[in-house]
Amino acid sequence: MSRFLRTLAGESLSPPPVWLMRQAGRYLPEYRAIRAQAPDFLAFCFDPDLATEVPLQPIRRFGLDAAILFSDILVLPHALGQSVWFEEGVGPRLEPLRSEADLLRLSVDGVSETLDPCCETLRRLRKALPDEVGLIGFAGAPWTVASYMIEGGSSRDFTRAKRWAFAAPESFGRLIDLIVAGTVRYLLDQVAAGAQVLQLFDSWSGVWAEPAFRQWCSAPAAAIAQQVRQRHPDVPLIYFPRAAGGMLPEAAGAADWGALGLDTTVPLAWARSSLPSTLPLQGNLDPQVLVVGGSALEAEVRRIRSAMTGRPFVFNLGHGIDKDTPPENVSQLVELVREQT
Amino acid sequence: MSRFLRTLAGESLSPPPVWLMRQAGRYLPEYRAIRAQAPDFLAFCFDPDLATEVPLQPIRRFGLDAAILFSDILVLPHALGQSVWFEEGVGPRLEPLRSEADLLRLSVDGVSETLDPCCETLRRLRKALPDEVGLIGFAGAPWTVASYMIEGGSSRDFTRAKRWAFAAPESFGRLIDLIVAGTVRYLLDQVAAGAQVLQLFDSWSGVWAEPAFRQWCSAPAAAIAQQVRQRHPDVPLIYFPRAAGGMLPEAAGAADWGALGLDTTVPLAWARSSLPSTLPLQGNLDPQVLVVGGSALEAEVRRIRSAMTGRPFVFNLGHGIDKDTPPENVSQLVELVREQT
Repeated sequence: MSRFLRTLAGESLSPPPVWLMRQAGRYLPEYRAIRAQAPDFLAFCFDPDLATEVPLQPIRRFGLDAAILFSDILVLPHALGQSVWFEEGVGPRLEPLRSEADLLRLSVDGVSETLDPCCETLRRLRKALPDEVGLIGFAGAPWTVASYMIEGGSSRDFTRAKRWAFAAPESFGRLIDLIVAGTVRYLLDQVAAGAQVLQLFDSWSGVWAEPAFRQWCSAPAAAIAQQVRQRHPDVPLIYFPRAAGGMLPEAAGAADWGALGLDTTVPLAWARSSLPSTLPLQGNLDPQVLVVGGSALEAEVRRIRSAMTGRPFVFNLGHGIDKDTPPENVSQLVELVREQT
Repeated sequence: MSRFLRTLAGESLSPPPVWLMRQAGRYLPEYRAIRAQAPDFLAFCFDPDLATEVPLQPIRRFGLDAAILFSDILVLPHALGQSVWFEEGVGPRLEPLRSEADLLRLSVDGVSETLDPCCETLRRLRKALPDEVGLIGFAGAPWTVASYMIEGGSSRDFTRAKRWAFAAPESFGRLIDLIVAGTVRYLLDQVAAGAQVLQLFDSWSGVWAEPAFRQWCSAPAAAIAQQVRQRHPDVPLIYFPRAAGGMLPEAAGAADWGALGLDTTVPLAWARSSLPSTLPLQGNLDPQVLVVGGSALEAEVRRIRSAMTGRPFVFNLGHGIDKDTPPENVSQLVELVREQT
């Protein structure tokens, strides 16, 4: 079993395995070259020839411990029947859901067929990767996906989505249930196609008070975990509730996670004392210190490694890699993480 | 002594005193009417005739327990010599600091004189307000102000400011020191002009890993508290480190705060168990549930009141009031907070 999978199974390895969120991305010249071959971002995600090459690029360059499917969390709303597109320099855009009636136009029926190109990418990746490199599939967590579906893109205050949830929790719950059902299908397909580990990205979980966090973030994410584990008890699920802050213990306890992803702001001594000692943790270097590199990077990598000594831990960033990151700083990072201490 | 001041002095009152961040604002028609009389937002803040009227509006309408100076945290960079303006529909803009050389153009020498109109507003407010209504002065906390000064406005990832701090901590520290010195002057002037309580807004404190949070958020905020308390040990300082998450206990312990402001995401049982029981807390209703009103608002107000029973607590929002808030929902909120339980 690879070092990554052993860690998720509960082993404390030194040095820890390492991969980086958005490790295949715009900071790499070879990524920009291949990106230029696709007419738009969704077409890029759905072209297995291109999408298989992308995750292999950082593996070749840096020898990381895991590769992750190249796709986007918003392929799910697309597969549910919502109009999704990506505007250069703006980000994702969706034809926003405005009322309960809009939900009736969505369905999980087409999920497997529409997202089969992503599964084809996983099948090819599994063949291309050596055994010691883990293969991660992923999806967005229900609240985060719902927020994009209602806001029509990224948002600062999530006013429409929150107001919907407070004013009409029944219909908001139906949207969440639909996303849960679609995501379970998609993730089961990913496992069948070769994904060894699954990560749920709850990028916008840090906006709710505690009852709503439980209801709309951790419980629906846990429902996905439970349904996936029923079929595949051996496939670890990593939950990444970004900016969950004081709700992190609640998030950790909601399901039998393979690991919990920590964002940059999580104090590690507090994480050690507040989260179950057997729960593998993953994180949480500030992507901006990776941009800066040098002695600042060195100090931060050593601090994180030292704080996580003796518990199952996957070294990662606390947020996606920044497009301005010099690739040589990633090499420096990997060397620092693999230093014998 | 007013119920607000008694709470900040450590008394647990039932019902708790209540005020709302941004309680004087665009959701009120009388605010929009007076705003139309000023050519731009900074001129509005610096016109004591207009700026005195604004904080009185919600006091008249809702009978809240405290009024807060009408101003903006970015009057400080303006007073330090940086160019600051507000673009309609965009928000604050600043001529961004780009290098250490730009710091040399800034000075605390003009702070008292430039910001005297704000102090004149406070003098008039103190006369206009009945004794039972508290008067709050405020400033931005150093990191939050520094981030605006470097980014040139609000930011999503604070890339420039963070990179500066990681790459050149000495010069970044000089900027922080300058903001601390200017803020201390400004707050001492506010106390002399009649402010009974001071609040430090650290709106962007939720972006740092723990060592940087200590160095750039809580320690500089604590330095301000210490210098103000040396001169005015009787004036409580409220620190509001928004989105500080797991760093909240560190923030709480950094100084002898009059109260700690909790954002919406802070779980209250955790706050009770993790923060000193004598420390007054302030917060943390979701502004979006105030927009929705009705039974959702009722449930949330009851939950928060019940969780904070028996400890010194000021009812507030967890973030500023939303411009879409129906004023009648604020009336409903105040009634709910003042219900005998």
